[in-house]
Amino acid sequence: MPAPDPSPSPAATALRPVPVSPTLAINEAIARKRREGVRVLPFGFGEAGIPLHPSLTRELAAGAGRGAYGPVAGSPALRAAAAGYWNRRGLATDPDLVVAGPGSKPLLYALITALGGDLAVPAPSWVTYAAQAALSGAAALHVPTRPGEGGVPDPALLAAAVTGARARGRTVRAVVLTLPDNPTGTLASAATVREVCRVARDLDLVLVSDEIYRDLVHDPARDVPSPARWAPERTVVTTALSKNLAAGGWRIGVARLPDGPFGRALRASLLGLASEIWSSPPAPVQHAAAHAFAEPPELVERVDRSRRLHARIAGAVADRFERAGALLHRPQAAFYLYPDLEPMRDRLERSHGVREGSDLTDLLLERYGVGVLPGAVFGDDPAALRMRVAPSLLYGADDEQRLAALGHPDPASLPWIAAGLDRLSEVLADLGGEAASGHGAPGRGGQAPAALAS
Amino acid sequence: MPAPDPSPSPAATALRPVPVSPTLAINEAIARKRREGVRVLPFGFGEAGIPLHPSLTRELAAGAGRGAYGPVAGSPALRAAAAGYWNRRGLATDPDLVVAGPGSKPLLYALITALGGDLAVPAPSWVTYAAQAALSGAAALHVPTRPGEGGVPDPALLAAAVTGARARGRTVRAVVLTLPDNPTGTLASAATVREVCRVARDLDLVLVSDEIYRDLVHDPARDVPSPARWAPERTVVTTALSKNLAAGGWRIGVARLPDGPFGRALRASLLGLASEIWSSPPAPVQHAAAHAFAEPPELVERVDRSRRLHARIAGAVADRFERAGALLHRPQAAFYLYPDLEPMRDRLERSHGVREGSDLTDLLLERYGVGVLPGAVFGDDPAALRMRVAPSLLYGADDEQRLAALGHPDPASLPWIAAGLDRLSEVLADLGGEAASGHGAPGRGGQAPAALAS
Ligand SMILES: Cc1ncc(COP(=O)(O)O)c(C=O)c1O
Ligand SMILES: Cc1ncc(COP(=O)(O)O)c(C=O)c1O
Repeated sequence: MPAPDPSPSPAATALRPVPVSPTLAINEAIARKRREGVRVLPFGFGEAGIPLHPSLTRELAAGAGRGAYGPVAGSPALRAAAAGYWNRRGLATDPDLVVAGPGSKPLLYALITALGGDLAVPAPSWVTYAAQAALSGAAALHVPTRPGEGGVPDPALLAAAVTGARARGRTVRAVVLTLPDNPTGTLASAATVREVCRVARDLDLVLVSDEIYRDLVHDPARDVPSPARWAPERTVVTTALSKNLAAGGWRIGVARLPDGPFGRALRASLLGLASEIWSSPPAPVQHAAAHAFAEPPELVERVDRSRRLHARIAGAVADRFERAGALLHRPQAAFYLYPDLEPMRDRLERSHGVREGSDLTDLLLERYGVGVLPGAVFGDDPAALRMRVAPSLLYGADDEQRLAALGHPDPASLPWIAAGLDRLSEVLADLGGEAASGHGAPGRGGQAPAALAS
Repeated sequence: MPAPDPSPSPAATALRPVPVSPTLAINEAIARKRREGVRVLPFGFGEAGIPLHPSLTRELAAGAGRGAYGPVAGSPALRAAAAGYWNRRGLATDPDLVVAGPGSKPLLYALITALGGDLAVPAPSWVTYAAQAALSGAAALHVPTRPGEGGVPDPALLAAAVTGARARGRTVRAVVLTLPDNPTGTLASAATVREVCRVARDLDLVLVSDEIYRDLVHDPARDVPSPARWAPERTVVTTALSKNLAAGGWRIGVARLPDGPFGRALRASLLGLASEIWSSPPAPVQHAAAHAFAEPPELVERVDRSRRLHARIAGAVADRFERAGALLHRPQAAFYLYPDLEPMRDRLERSHGVREGSDLTDLLLERYGVGVLPGAVFGDDPAALRMRVAPSLLYGADDEQRLAALGHPDPASLPWIAAGLDRLSEVLADLGGEAASGHGAPGRGGQAPAALAS
């Protein structure tokens, strides 16, 4: 058998079909548009859009020599720092109940797998929860949220959905909350979270509280109602440095497990899974993350500034959507908004043949170079004309522009951001207008402002 | 519901039970012994035992500012560098068919999950393959290897096992090869690999070739027979920087997918899984890994030196086992050996009550502070008195000692290494002796040489 025969390959059809996460896939679609020379508005991807703080890169360089695998749960220094982070937020935390992983995404995957059974998730909610439940062999129960309270299933609907699923013979073990929320950019009330805690107790559900956007609530005085306060015995909290400090590419996340026998058993199961799936989080990054979770003043200030920047730009984008006639809960946190173009449905259908959400987002991408995600990928009603808009990649095409945006009292007035906002208004006007004449069709490469052509 | 009620926690018994990987767990057992003041020989864990090369830490520092998530498959620069690495080894590689992940462990997990179905693995083999198959809902078929050819199932037994499993209604989709092998430290012959390729074609199996120890074959002139040479249409190759460059804690690995429709479909499935489980490999580490896979002269020299060090010490440890009467295939690669104490069975049973492999390794740990893993954890016969010995943590207690070992023409003569080897001989003599009088019982802290007390 010296040379390769022209042997038939294994059957590709037998492979497990797993589509790439839509939030990552939209990135590639936007890049394709750019290569075609189209002027784009990259509102698809949930990246914070700001540079790393120099003290973080310095700490990573200082930890670069760490080549050993180290403990599966993460280094004692990182776990102690993460415990301190939660202690400062009123959640007393034992470092032994902190587990670090290469991102909060893998931690959530291992948690969902360890818990087993079906998973109740808000509708809409971050795409990955339902996808991870499916990978672990379970189903996601999508439970609508209360208006303006994204990330937390309506308590009564949650109870009904879980009871109903159990009556059909399903095992439902946990419910996910996102506080504050992606995709809606809103934050549920303490009252709603307390009610969900009560339902979780009544129905013996574990609460998985994804608090990755916790530090990015636009109003810094506003309290984040973690369920760990009211149902500490059954709440797992996750967070990461990906959003508040824009370190998504570093891959580090932490989970805070409940105290008591359940939490200890969950820790054992989680570490078992971690040890067979990823071994340990990247050691140099752990070193830098321990610094970050200690919250030195320069990083507190950086988070502060980015919170202000996100608030300004999300607010400005919300204004443009409202002026164009969209319905919208004003964004309260992070860098997302979730407009509903229902009021424009008739015109959208007449002028552009739009019947459901994905028609609208396809039109936005293909005709206008605007990359956004339809509500359906978040488990929302496919017929609805809702979409997630993530404007943080407007902040700049390079670190110089992004730092200027971070430091500016009125970042929406910076020329590259203003150009993006104006382009958005233009697209929305064209979309809502009666004549789809070709004016407003994609601009060509040369005309794109620097921020958008990168 | 103002204060937390003393509410019952969720039932811990409903959690998925997943034990921590034995290779990682032995670490903790050894650490416990140390805390008890016992003099230990830490032969349990598969860490390379040498420091990172300064050019690697320099490159990681240079990439520290990379905070963006980046492509799921890894950066174009890293994929191109990995393709170059394989090209230089006679495996022509398209960078588009390279997928990077946070370690080769998660890549193997995603591969096994994407392929679906049961997985044939060598017996013995690295613990994680079977554990990952179980996590993905499949079973591992353990197929014995030919004597002295660890890592590759005996071709005839493989064919019989797969045919038999299929006759029982099981779906078997793939077979794993480890070239060279952990736990045995041996390398299968080209003839055996070619036969396995033929079986894989006849039975339409995908070949997963784990070549993480490829650069650590003790005889540098010896060829590593990758199945990608004879069955390119169905072979996936994985590797990482964890062993050859001692960067296990950095968490970076790469997979080389087969060309053609099957490879492209596998890539799609793998990226889908990666996007929902880990997003992307750590970006700063990708930058440094691109440098490493380009194989600049200083890193080639470093790998060379560590190969020589591993050969010397594994050889010296093998000598001690042989002198004590153990059976052994001489180690040919990496930093593992797999002695069989069968010739001492009668004495071990009479003097120490040892009946099976785990009795022996428990005795070694508890009575002598020697941490090794029984063959059973690798899928070997539990009754056999075989165990995996990983002596690389003997090289030194700190980087100074480890660098001295790397640079020394006769590292076994360095005092800290010689002391470890002598302690091993002492333990083996006591173990094989008729009287288990208490002489040879664990030394106490103060007596431990520095290398062993770390
Ligand atoms: C709600 C939510 N949770 C978790 C994550 C995962 O982030 P990471 O894996 O970087 O910690 C994201 C990132 O998009 C997110 O939006
Ligand atoms: C045979 C084998 N494959 C793969 C790995 C995984 O290494 P990593 O995940 O660091 O790439 C190891 C590490 O112990 C190993 O021994």
